Amino acid sequence: MSVLLLSSEDVETHARMTDVIPAVEEAFAAYERGSVQMPAKSYIELERYNGDFRSMPAYMDAGDWDAAGIKWVNVHPDNPEKHDLPTVMGTMIYSDPETALPLSIMDGTALTMQRTGAAAAVATDHLAIEDASTLGIVGAGIQSYTQVEAIAEVRPITEIVVSDLDEDRIARFIDHFEDDFDVRAGSIAEAASCDVLSTVTPVREPIVSLDDVGEHTHINAMGADAAGKQELETAVLEAAKLTIDDHAQTTHSGEINVPYGRGEIEDPHIYAEIGEIVAGAKPGRTDDDGITVFDSTGLAIQDVAAARVTYEAANDADAGTTFDLIDTS
Amino acid sequence: MSVLLLSSEDVETHARMTDVIPAVEEAFAAYERGSVQMPAKSYIELERYNGDFRSMPAYMDAGDWDAAGIKWVNVHPDNPEKHDLPTVMGTMIYSDPETALPLSIMDGTALTMQRTGAAAAVATDHLAIEDASTLGIVGAGIQSYTQVEAIAEVRPITEIVVSDLDEDRIARFIDHFEDDFDVRAGSIAEAASCDVLSTVTPVREPIVSLDDVGEHTHINAMGADAAGKQELETAVLEAAKLTIDDHAQTTHSGEINVPYGRGEIEDPHIYAEIGEIVAGAKPGRTDDDGITVFDSTGLAIQDVAAARVTYEAANDADAGTTFDLIDTS
Repeated sequence: MSVLLLSSEDVETHARMTDVIPAVEEAFAAYERGSVQMPAKSYIELERYNGDFRSMPAYMDAGDWDAAGIKWVNVHPDNPEKHDLPTVMGTMIYSDPETALPLSIMDGTALTMQRTGAAAAVATDHLAIEDASTLGIVGAGIQSYTQVEAIAEVRPITEIVVSDLDEDRIARFIDHFEDDFDVRAGSIAEAASCDVLSTVTPVREPIVSLDDVGEHTHINAMGADAAGKQELETAVLEAAKLTIDDHAQTTHSGEINVPYGRGEIEDPHIYAEIGEIVAGAKPGRTDDDGITVFDSTGLAIQDVAAARVTYEAANDADAGTTFDLIDTS
Repeated sequence: MSVLLLSSEDVETHARMTDVIPAVEEAFAAYERGSVQMPAKSYIELERYNGDFRSMPAYMDAGDWDAAGIKWVNVHPDNPEKHDLPTVMGTMIYSDPETALPLSIMDGTALTMQRTGAAAAVATDHLAIEDASTLGIVGAGIQSYTQVEAIAEVRPITEIVVSDLDEDRIARFIDHFEDDFDVRAGSIAEAASCDVLSTVTPVREPIVSLDDVGEHTHINAMGADAAGKQELETAVLEAAKLTIDDHAQTTHSGEINVPYGRGEIEDPHIYAEIGEIVAGAKPGRTDDDGITVFDSTGLAIQDVAAARVTYEAANDADAGTTFDLIDTS
């Protein structure tokens, strides 16, 4: 029985934001309903190589469809310098839950970028002002591109302010988006005063202060993915209506992990899990809201949901490469 | 960067027992030294499909080499009848621990059979009588074939007695091996009186009694892989010098799980983990020993070790299919 192999390029082509965003939204809703299985990420720590592997298995049932799979992903910070390889690489196995047949094996790196952008778009759709037209980006690395692509699907973005210490990254970002948006470099404060802000940096000391942030800005805090990381000053988190994706992950390694550990942010200050808002159990932005923050850590069900629509689209387009991996005779 | 894809046939060809047995032996030794990382198997239980997925990530350091990877495997007992698919299918991702680059993606089903046979061979090598020439097989399903192939690598097996309720399975087994061995069908007692016995069944009520077993028989109890399963009467386990692979797995789902749960088999009766014997911390068979039992549950490090030698052999032979999965530019 053949499995559909999808390269980075295949995933970029067929993981269309118009499909991935609703799939990720359904994943969040299923999470809220308890219709998912998502064992804790398990880690293999490799001190001698300064790296780790993470396995992220998941199953989700959206009602009309269900999906299962696993992402095997690493973080090896020395890779770029020592081996001319990316820090993070992922491989996704997407399986039919009914029979467990592996349907597709795809590049998990491109998939992660798409589903991470999609998560920000889902949060933005529920939490940003309706007519948001300006988007700030702090951190112009590879994860920033899908922030723009996804958020522009849910709000009429015309203007982008991008902030980064690296001028090459800024230039690449502007070059990539200048045909479609009014895009310019700016300070963190200029980016943070936009209607929507996505922070996509690996910093361990907060770089966005409360003074920087606009009165009604919705912030997607995407960067923190390990204990000790924090992009927004605690005062921003305290002032904001705060939404998370998963309590265990965010308090362990998300944007709020540091102040939560210190007792500066406590559970009653967390307004909602994104699933509760998506499912309608709690309202998103209301007229009374000022700053809103979505603390995204990334859930295995996002990968599974994104893998499903990517596989379906590639399959419909006769794209990808088939390979007889498993003898089912 | 390309990954080497290995189909079932590729794995069967290149996972040579002469390589897999020593690799699995090194895995057991590394386990004993504490030079492995093997997070607990994590399960996704799918009640609506009467099935489950298991993820088995692992890293092992053999000293001269190390290896990492993950096996994603399922158990869907309704597959054969409902979908004309195997109950168990596996996909293995074999990765370079230094950079995390996925080196190979291979059929994990064929790999599992090889490494399971290899585990029995390692135990047989240390626990069976030196001149063992007769091998009993109880359960002639697909896992039984690599028992023969592997055990014949470590002992001068000439005669095989195979026992199974299904005459078709018996006929296929005999047809497969009759050119190389003096092979015949027999009762469980006839199989169990051989020098070496491998039990490879999914039974929940023991089928091998103490009366059946030869005075110096070494038994590889391979079948039990879930709570409630047991192939050997508890009296056999009580009478035997008992070796296990991993305490947590075997007491949860291995051959001894039922009597262990009832308090009939207790920790002091467990002679050793196979790693202790392989590493020389405890002797294998001695002149004083009668029946010996190896309770094998299957460790993720066996898969990683087997994947390494399979990848190396296939790579050396320019076998397999390369695919550019991940964009590393």
